[in-house]
Parts: sequence; C-alpha cells; structure tokens
Amino acid sequence: MLLRLGYDMQFEVPEAAACVAQLRIHPSRIEGLRETDAMCVEPAIPLEEYIDSFGNLCTRFLAPAGTLRLSATALFEDSGQADSVNPGAAARPIAELPADTLQFLLPSRYCEVDALAAAAFDLFAATAPGWERVQRICDWVQEKVTFGYSYARPTKTALDVFAERKGVCRDFQHLAITLCRAMGIPARYAAGYLGDIGIPPAPFPMDFSAWFEVYLEDRWWAFDARHNTPRIGRILMATGRDAADVAFFTSFGTANLTNFLVVSEEVQSDTNSARPAA
Amino acid sequence: MLLRLGYDMQFEVPEAAACVAQLRIHPSRIEGLRETDAMCVEPAIPLEEYIDSFGNLCTRFLAPAGTLRLSATALFEDSGQADSVNPGAAARPIAELPADTLQFLLPSRYCEVDALAAAAFDLFAATAPGWERVQRICDWVQEKVTFGYSYARPTKTALDVFAERKGVCRDFQHLAITLCRAMGIPARYAAGYLGDIGIPPAPFPMDFSAWFEVYLEDRWWAFDARHNTPRIGRILMATGRDAADVAFFTSFGTANLTNFLVVSEEVQSDTNSARPAA
Amino acid sequence: MLLRLGYDMQFEVPEAAACVAQLRIHPSRIEGLRETDAMCVEPAIPLEEYIDSFGNLCTRFLAPAGTLRLSATALFEDSGQADSVNPGAAARPIAELPADTLQFLLPSRYCEVDALAAAAFDLFAATAPGWERVQRICDWVQEKVTFGYSYARPTKTALDVFAERKGVCRDFQHLAITLCRAMGIPARYAAGYLGDIGIPPAPFPMDFSAWFEVYLEDRWWAFDARHNTPRIGRILMATGRDAADVAFFTSFGTANLTNFLVVSEEVQSDTNSARPAA
Amino acid sequence: MLLRLGYDMQFEVPEAAACVAQLRIHPSRIEGLRETDAMCVEPAIPLEEYIDSFGNLCTRFLAPAGTLRLSATALFEDSGQADSVNPGAAARPIAELPADTLQFLLPSRYCEVDALAAAAFDLFAATAPGWERVQRICDWVQEKVTFGYSYARPTKTALDVFAERKGVCRDFQHLAITLCRAMGIPARYAAGYLGDIGIPPAPFPMDFSAWFEVYLEDRWWAFDARHNTPRIGRILMATGRDAADVAFFTSFGTANLTNFLVVSEEVQSDTNSARPAA
Repeated sequence: MLLRLGYDMQFEVPEAAACVAQLRIHPSRIEGLRETDAMCVEPAIPLEEYIDSFGNLCTRFLAPAGTLRLSATALFEDSGQADSVNPGAAARPIAELPADTLQFLLPSRYCEVDALAAAAFDLFAATAPGWERVQRICDWVQEKVTFGYSYARPTKTALDVFAERKGVCRDFQHLAITLCRAMGIPARYAAGYLGDIGIPPAPFPMDFSAWFEVYLEDRWWAFDARHNTPRIGRILMATGRDAADVAFFTSFGTANLTNFLVVSEEVQSDTNSARPAA
Repeated sequence: MLLRLGYDMQFEVPEAAACVAQLRIHPSRIEGLRETDAMCVEPAIPLEEYIDSFGNLCTRFLAPAGTLRLSATALFEDSGQADSVNPGAAARPIAELPADTLQFLLPSRYCEVDALAAAAFDLFAATAPGWERVQRICDWVQEKVTFGYSYARPTKTALDVFAERKGVCRDFQHLAITLCRAMGIPARYAAGYLGDIGIPPAPFPMDFSAWFEVYLEDRWWAFDARHNTPRIGRILMATGRDAADVAFFTSFGTANLTNFLVVSEEVQSDTNSARPAA
Repeated sequence: MLLRLGYDMQFEVPEAAACVAQLRIHPSRIEGLRETDAMCVEPAIPLEEYIDSFGNLCTRFLAPAGTLRLSATALFEDSGQADSVNPGAAARPIAELPADTLQFLLPSRYCEVDALAAAAFDLFAATAPGWERVQRICDWVQEKVTFGYSYARPTKTALDVFAERKGVCRDFQHLAITLCRAMGIPARYAAGYLGDIGIPPAPFPMDFSAWFEVYLEDRWWAFDARHNTPRIGRILMATGRDAADVAFFTSFGTANLTNFLVVSEEVQSDTNSARPAA
Repeated sequence: MLLRLGYDMQFEVPEAAACVAQLRIHPSRIEGLRETDAMCVEPAIPLEEYIDSFGNLCTRFLAPAGTLRLSATALFEDSGQADSVNPGAAARPIAELPADTLQFLLPSRYCEVDALAAAAFDLFAATAPGWERVQRICDWVQEKVTFGYSYARPTKTALDVFAERKGVCRDFQHLAITLCRAMGIPARYAAGYLGDIGIPPAPFPMDFSAWFEVYLEDRWWAFDARHNTPRIGRILMATGRDAADVAFFTSFGTANLTNFLVVSEEVQSDTNSARPAA
C-alpha cells in the first residue's frame, strides 16, 4: 500500500527563535520511504539533524523573525496491515526485560506512575499479565474518559485525567501509559501519521496522531487508548516517555501557528506509477 | 451510659498569638452534659465564645507568649446506642433538600467535588440512591485506602487520596464526603470524642476522632469511612465542610504542641453516683 | 445616580434539574432598589427564596426539561461614588476581629491558604499591615498574572494561578484573596454588577463581574485585583469564601446556556422619570 | 586527595523482586578509581551491568526473597579542588547548544518547566544570562525554601516546593533545575558522594547527596541549591532529568531498607600507602 504523507505548516515568529522539529519518519520505518520526507523550510536556513536519546530523527534550526513555513510530501510504502493483535503475547518479567526498556517503567512529566500505582494495582491486578492486561487498560481508559477538544490543557497529566475523566488524544495515551507502567509493562508515547484508511473519514481536518507502545514478548506493540481498535497506516515519527519528549514542533521563544495541514492518505498505485511518466 | 470526656493539652507559644478552639460539645448534644465541659485555660486569660456559621461553639483568646494549657473534664450522659443504621433511608431529591444543607453539596478546600464528579458517577451511579449508596462509598473508601500515620500531610485533598490510596482518618472522610456530594448527597465533616466502647481497645493513646455525616430522609446520619462500623459513644464537637472548617485548635502564629491527652471512656454509674456522697 | 441593572439568560435543560440562582441584589444593598430585581422565570414554576450562610439571597427551583429563561430588570439608585480608598485603614489584630470574619482567614476550595502561606509571607511581610498590604497584593497580582479567556478552567485554584501566571477575572481574585488571608487579613469573594461608568467602554458584551472584599478597621472594603482601580457602580449580588460559594447559576444536572445578556448602565434621570409619562 | 568511598545497605525482600542499582562511580569519573567500586551483593546472585540513556553505569539483578546486602568500598583519587566557580561562564544560545543537552531543557516528572515558566521569567529575566543567573537561582531557592526531613514526600514536585517553600535536598535541586530550564539553561539532576571535607562535620550520619549540573560555555558545571557553596569531594554516580531517573536503588516489588551506611571521607596518604605494607 502506498501512502502520501506530508504536512504544510506556517508560523509567525516575532523574534528569532531556536526550534526543534520531530517531523521525520522514524528511523525504524525508514525502509518504507519511496520519496523523501525531507523537511522543506522557508526561508532557506541551515538545518541540523540529530538523533535524540529515544532514537528520533530531529531537525533543529534558528528560525529568523518573520514567516516560517515547514513542509514535506513523502511517498511511503506500508504493509497495509492493521496493527498487530497478539492476545498471547506475554509480559516479560522485569528482570528479563532489555535494559533499554526499563526507563519506560519510570514516572515522567505527564505520567505520575508513583502517584497512581495503588489505583492501577487495584483496577488491574486481576487481569492476566501481558496483552490482555494492556487491552483491559485501553478498554477502561476509552470507556471512562470523555473526549473533547475543549478539555485540552498543556499541563494536564495522567493524574488529572484519572480524576477528571476528560481529555484529548494525548491524555488518553498518558493515562494508559501510566497504568501500564504501574503494572510493570514498559510503555512509551508514540506519534506519527495515521490516516482514516478502512474507517469512515473523520469530520475533522487531518492531523498527526498520538498512540502508545508497550513492550511484550520481545518487541514493542502499538496500542491506542483513544480509538482502541487496530488501524491501518500508522507511520511512526517519534517516541518518548510522554508528550514532553515528543513534539512535532518546539520553539524556544514565540512562534504562532497560522496554518496547519497534514496529509496521510492512500495513493492508488496506478496513479502513482503514472506520475513519473507525466 | 455515662461518659467521662476531656482533654489536657499544652503548647509552647513563642509570641502572643490569636487562637481559636473548637473544643466544646456541639450545641446539638448539649443536653447530655452532666458536668460542664467548660475549657480551663492556663494562664487565666479572657475567653470569648461564639457560634460559627456551622453552629459550632468556638472559643477564642489571645494566648500570651509562654506555656499555654487547655483542659476540660466533662461528664456526659449518652444513650449508649451505636450509630443508627437505617438501610431504608432515602436520599432526598436535591430540589427538596432543606436550604441549609445545600452548601454541603459544594466543593470545599479538601473536597474537590468538581474534579472528582465523573469518577464518582462512574463508580457509584449503579448503587441505589440513599443509605446503600453512602454505605457503598464507605466500603469502597475503606477497602481502597491504606491507613498510615506517615501518610498525613496538611495539604492532602480528596483528589490526592483518590489517586495515592493512602491516608489518615481525615483523608478517608474527605474522600467519602467528596464522593457523596458528587452523587448529590449532602455530606459534612464531623469531629468529636469517640472512645473504644464495645470494641477492643486501640493500641494508641486516645485521640479525638473525625467522621462524617450525610443528610438522608430528614436528618443527618453519622458515617465513618475509616472504621466503617457502627460505634458507641460518638460525641460531636464540631462540623463543617471539611477539616479546613473543623480544627480543635487553630493558632494564628506559632504554637508548638508539647503535651496531648484525650479521655473518652465509660464511667460506671455506681462509682459516679457515689461521688457526690463522698 | 440611577442604574438600570438586569439580565436575560436562557438555558436548554434536557432533564428536570434542581437549580440555585444567586441573582438578587445582596440584602446589604437592598435599600438602593427603585424597581424590583425580582427574577422572572419562564416557564412559570414555583420559586423558593432563602438566605444562605453568607447572607446571600438565593432562589431555588426545579427547572423542568426544556427551555429555561431567567430575567430581571431593576432600577437601582447608587451613590455614584467610586470604590472607597482609605490608605490609612489598619488591619485589625486577629484577636480583635469580629468572630464572623474569621472564616475568611481559612483555606477554601480555590484558595489554598495553607499551601501558599510561606510564599505570601515572603512576598508581603515587608509591607505595612492594612490598606497598603492589600493594595500591594493587588498590584502584584495584576502585574504578574496575564488575563486571557482561554486560560479559564473550572478547577483552577490560586496555587495554579500563582505558578502559571495566567487566568480570568476570578483567578485574579482567588490569588489575591489567598495572599490576603495568608497575611492575616480576612478576604472574601464578591460578585455582582459592574458597568463601565467612568471608563472607556469594554469591547466585550457586558457580563457580571467578580471582585473581592477585605476586612480592615471595622468594615469590608472592595478591591479588584483584575482591574485594580476604583470603579463606580459596583453593585453586590453575592459573597462567599470563593467562587465555589458564589455562582450566578448552579444546576444539579445539565443546563446548557444558550443566551446570556447582562445590563448595567447609567440611566439619565430625566429619561427615566419621563418613562412613566410615555 | 584520596577518598574512601563506599556503602553498606541491607534490605528485607519479602518476595523475589527485580532491582536496579545506580551505585557505581559515573563513567566520566572512572579514571579516579584506585580500588574498584564493584558492588558486592549478598547472597551471590547474577548481576547485569548496563549503561542507561544518560550514561550511568547501572546494575540490575533479581533479588531473591530474604535479606539483601549491597556494599562496596572504593579508593578514589580526587583533585581535592572545590567545585569550579567561573562567574564569566556564558549561557550558550539554545541554537548553539549541543544536541544532547536539549533534553535537559524539557519538563520532567518532578520539574514542571511548563507550569513554572512564567514565574521563572518574572523572577530571573533581569539577571545576566549565564553563571550569574544560575547563581541567583540557587541563592533564591536556598533563601526561600526551608529544609526539613519531615517535608519529604515521594511525589513532591518543583511546583509544590515553589508554593510550599519546604523540602529536602532533592526538592531544592528540583526547583533550581526547573527554574534554570525555564530560563533556557540546560540543567540536570546529579547524585553521588559528598563528604564534609573542609566544612564542619554534619551532625547526621553520612548519606549520598544530590546536586545539579548546568550547561554553560561548553561543559556541565556543578551547583547545589541546598548548600549553595563550593564543596570538595563531589564524586558523581548518576545524572538524569530529575530524581525519577536517578535512584541509588529501585526495586520493582517491596524491599524494606533495614540498614544504611555511607562512607565518604579523606584518607591520609601515608596511612593508605602503608596499608599494602601491612
């Protein structure tokens, strides 16, 4: 399955500001690229790329005062398979987890594992460790939390969501991540492209999407406490402990978003193969 | 049943400080007094009594620098009945509640009804309104929260307890109060004497006790989310929205507690009636 | 000075819900009424009035499912004087405060006096107790906090405002109230009418307004940490510890506001006296 | 200067539990070791070492039920110099910071940079960027926050400390770290040995110590908002975003500390060189 992936966003920057973008396809998915996802920046300014401690491909630059435009349009070949479902996947005993997964058991900015440990244990101790436990956590979060854009706030944490029961996409994931960690399952935040392939088109403009990953057996698996159903075309851009580590765009200084467009849709192969011929 | 009720507490006051004590038997129980519960203050200083907006009999005074001692020893005749249990007591529709109970539906300092409303509804919407609902709330709080003196902190709220699942007596009551209010049942904090009549003596020195009251049918009923069993000899001293309104002793300035003794025990009638004869 | 005061608000009520309105002129200002401020409710339903523990005139009723409209239009004679300014007003020692002001020294839902006491002392201990201290607190709050409607959230407390430095009108007052109480000055939340007499008209539709009152010398004085300047035509409707006690409209159940209009403007006497002649 | 560094700690482990220790000298200081700091574990169990994403040398193992003892005694040669003081050290513009320092500008579990940004800017915008700014932040934190062991709690964050003004060592560092990050200076939590060389011996048993590091010019510099004075013999064991990343001992399951001894003291060279001769 071929996907057209891209974005076009514009900011007004009153004063020169250092910026970091996590807008590249994640290195772990890079083999799917058929056309580059290189970020086009206007005005043309020097860009520096680096891999952060979570393995994300980040781009940094000094945005000059004025209008800043970031865009890309990539062609990506995906399996076309929905998220893997493996009810038999077992949780690894903590003593046997790979060392680099252990950090995803710890509390982080928006995931107060310490404060919610007792509640998590109360709610999910009776579930079977492994896939079922994660699925029950997702079911619980999806059932208990009401979605609404007006519920978003930048400082909202898993603890707030646990009590208030209201939030946006990232809040659902933060709560599920926190509950998984509290139950001994490494869980990390994930963000990327997610179109509406195989589901009714959403009545909203397309956007990037957040989900989360847990470590079971010997690999990471995608879960999504907001949609809570396997989806096609989830293309990872960045992972981290929580949304504090994963932001499509961070400016150290003011940058006001004035335009925002995301594309993530299937491309008919015929159409596409025809294009070079044009 | 005759009870000997009293206290003896001592403070070191580095600088003169205005103080308020809520150490008198509540006016609603005053008919049980057989000997006065008048507070004895050393050194002898002018005392002013007043009834606060919750109907509590408060005593205020300006404690001079030095040692302050507050004491009383009262004789109280109680019914000897355990807390009333009335499983048939119905919750009054809010529209029919007495106006002066409505304030006990609102959020207060340690009871964030607003933040916990969705969680309360999720947990208790399926219970029968009235006595059963309150009892289920108490059962839930007692089961989920672990008691420990080290868990106390002055700023701890119902929301903290709901997440952390740890607390002292007042924390249990705050969480239960918040859940009751969120479910439309007026609930208020209560404090007073509670001996260990009819139960095995506690391995701790005696202390004042906190419980809570809910309004069902046409009156207030005592509940106790910490002990969660009917008790004998609960003698009310003060009520309010939460512990912010109810404090045995408040000093506006430093006052370090150096001695603290509470008495709340049954007096054998024979012994007692013999006393005047002596 | 004659003021036309009134409101017209409409709600959609999906299911019958108990409601409380604090929409009457406060009893302390009732002598200014030249035409009644009686609340007109459509559909016509039984209303019950009561005075709450803060002295506010409240109206309660059971709103039936459907459209609910509340309106009033009163004529009020005000002194036309701006808020009193009395830089010599001294703070009363706590030991000498009237007993009924003491509750306004305590922490409440949105005013965590306990948590902010040390910060308050650090910031304002050097100010002269009394009027100057309150004024400095207002100056500080107004300077440090940025106003924005998007910063509103129902659970926002003084502590949140102290850290985040963003808020709406009620947030400014909550922070100032908390700081005053921490410094030993009774402070209470106030709400009512406030037109734009004597100032440039605001570019917003008229609304009710929140301010606060402190007890100095032997009376309450109005302060306003949001506008921070004496104003003309502040007509009190309700006071309480904080916004948890003071709400123009509370429904115990859903009631969606669909229309909202507030009037608070000067009436030319001639025009007014002419009206009956028309 | 030769230092004897070591620890001896004992836990009771009711059920086998996976554990992680960050008890080795940090790789960046490893050249100072004259005798190994290898951790001795009793009972003898398999240990696995790994470097975490912050460069810390971690040891993990599965502690069996029973008594667990961890100990080490190392000989370390230190410069004997106090912490560097370089008032001329400039803050690097964010656009020029090394990429791996950027994560230390972000919010983390106990450091809510997002929530405290406005307050930080208000307090420190007028200070000169660089060394002076960090020093002023340390001065402010040390002056405003009162130290007390009873103020410790596991979930306490920089925001709590900012309001309550009370805390233990880690709380001081968390607040200072948060303020530095908010002002654009990378700051990270640090923990290790710190004896009382050159200062009056503390009246407490020796313990590990927490401080923090900021990135100025082209390197990390140690600061300590608790002691706020240059110290001799600070030997780094672990760094991370905050105390969530840095813990001498973490058990995923219960492990009750029953004995705890830390040694960090100067060794007279003569005595030491004499030892092999014995």
